[in-house]
Amino acid sequence: MTEPEAVDRWAGGAAYVDGAFCPIVEAKISVLDMGLTRSDCTYDVVSVWDGRFFRLDAHLDRFLNSVEQLRLDIGRSRDDLEALLHECVSRAGLRNAYVSMTCTRGRPAPGSRDLRTCSNTFYCFAVPYVWVSSEEQQAVGASMWISNIPRIPPESVDPSVKNYHWLDMDMAQLDAYDHDAQLVVLRDMGGAITEGPGYNVFAFVDGRWVTPVRGTLQGVTRRTLIELCAESGHPAEQGRLTAEDLLRADEVLACTTAGGVMPVAQINGAPVGQGGVGARTADLRSRYWQRHVDPAWSTPVRYTRS
Amino acid sequence: MTEPEAVDRWAGGAAYVDGAFCPIVEAKISVLDMGLTRSDCTYDVVSVWDGRFFRLDAHLDRFLNSVEQLRLDIGRSRDDLEALLHECVSRAGLRNAYVSMTCTRGRPAPGSRDLRTCSNTFYCFAVPYVWVSSEEQQAVGASMWISNIPRIPPESVDPSVKNYHWLDMDMAQLDAYDHDAQLVVLRDMGGAITEGPGYNVFAFVDGRWVTPVRGTLQGVTRRTLIELCAESGHPAEQGRLTAEDLLRADEVLACTTAGGVMPVAQINGAPVGQGGVGARTADLRSRYWQRHVDPAWSTPVRYTRS
Repeated sequence: MTEPEAVDRWAGGAAYVDGAFCPIVEAKISVLDMGLTRSDCTYDVVSVWDGRFFRLDAHLDRFLNSVEQLRLDIGRSRDDLEALLHECVSRAGLRNAYVSMTCTRGRPAPGSRDLRTCSNTFYCFAVPYVWVSSEEQQAVGASMWISNIPRIPPESVDPSVKNYHWLDMDMAQLDAYDHDAQLVVLRDMGGAITEGPGYNVFAFVDGRWVTPVRGTLQGVTRRTLIELCAESGHPAEQGRLTAEDLLRADEVLACTTAGGVMPVAQINGAPVGQGGVGARTADLRSRYWQRHVDPAWSTPVRYTRS
Repeated sequence: MTEPEAVDRWAGGAAYVDGAFCPIVEAKISVLDMGLTRSDCTYDVVSVWDGRFFRLDAHLDRFLNSVEQLRLDIGRSRDDLEALLHECVSRAGLRNAYVSMTCTRGRPAPGSRDLRTCSNTFYCFAVPYVWVSSEEQQAVGASMWISNIPRIPPESVDPSVKNYHWLDMDMAQLDAYDHDAQLVVLRDMGGAITEGPGYNVFAFVDGRWVTPVRGTLQGVTRRTLIELCAESGHPAEQGRLTAEDLLRADEVLACTTAGGVMPVAQINGAPVGQGGVGARTADLRSRYWQRHVDPAWSTPVRYTRS
């Protein structure tokens, strides 16, 4: 048995940083790390629900691909990476968790600014499950604001490499608060809907689900929903959505690992469809959570602490 | 007198983080800070040369304006901020230093994702002076690559708010290495030259100095050079430069707080003008360093350690 005091230290979450495990409050990186000073890094987040990772392989695939795209090196095998994620969840004793892994450029050799001399930084952590849209908000549907700040274009920063370039999204989020909205979505320079801070968007418009194909993260939850849409008899199209499409849609939802399927009931102050949570959205949300116990899509956490 | 052991601890630099001073190797921030996870932060860097801050007021003005633009709060007065910078340099015992200050969104209230509940993070540090282009490189002129990766547009992230959104620039820098170039410069979506990782660019073309007016940081060194160009009898125009302009220019230079005036002798493999360091660039570089002892533009560091 673990001592009560020890449980407390890890209760907020557990991290693996600088080659050792520590409680999340002690997990820090150098103010000189280029992951901070240049946002030169990539990351991924996988959820644990009821003691099971959801689509861990898909997240590991994407993370390792992103690391390669940025010419970074996590300095360990995929198996070792996976073992560290299990151990973080286990140490934190969490049944529902938000599990994050990051690889940064790190710091160059002393006296050099040459990126090729950098010793890359890897860390990961598990904290209690995070809800982008609270459960109360999901029950009635969230409000969303369509921002006028254009999302950083894919030509500048590849959104398929999950990254921390979110200043445009945070400024748009502050703008959304000013308009009494909880969520925000950004468009590209050509007016097409892209994504919000951490989530993809789906709209049921003209009798079908549509989700943006360009300028957005190829989210694992997005991919899951595309599969679930097909399963529900309403296949989703990966295409183009405008603000006008969102405003006249029957149903709109946002989706992310940190919160699953989040119904949107109001956009720019006007109700979506009949308002409230649409029937198709509710159906997808139900299917989404059911899949979390499906062995084909989930992996039991290897809890090693009693 | 300070003990030799104590001197060693601070020799690499001194920081002020979480309300206390520490050696730079101990200066860290939480992996959950939104300054890292969203690059939601702003910063500024001022140099110290021969025991004097260079244009400290201009840097403080810009930093505090950036903080306000991002709706952040450093939680202290301008005078207190200035005192902390002096103290960092003094603790590190540096005569020539790179002095950085950062304010991040910080972390939201427990259980919330609302940016308005964030407790902002402020930290600053002084480390030995950093040369983007080494002194050896400056003597002969650096090689530069014009990247095809477009700079993040000002509509998405305001470049006048100094920020850490550098993934486009770091990927461009890696690309430059592949082409045997030391420095890199990015263009905007319309083909106009913007900036490189941390520096502005000037070209002497068609008988006058031109520096980009748009899509670039309004650098303090840039502003200094505009003044020095006027003083030298060749006023600089803030306008538009294309790749073709750079390739046919008589002289090209990059400038930044971390390195001053950096002559560029080669672009995309071809010599700039006659090659080597141009006479007008050498003149500006000389004027630039002379000004570091000018009391109108520099402030002596208040050294409190013996």
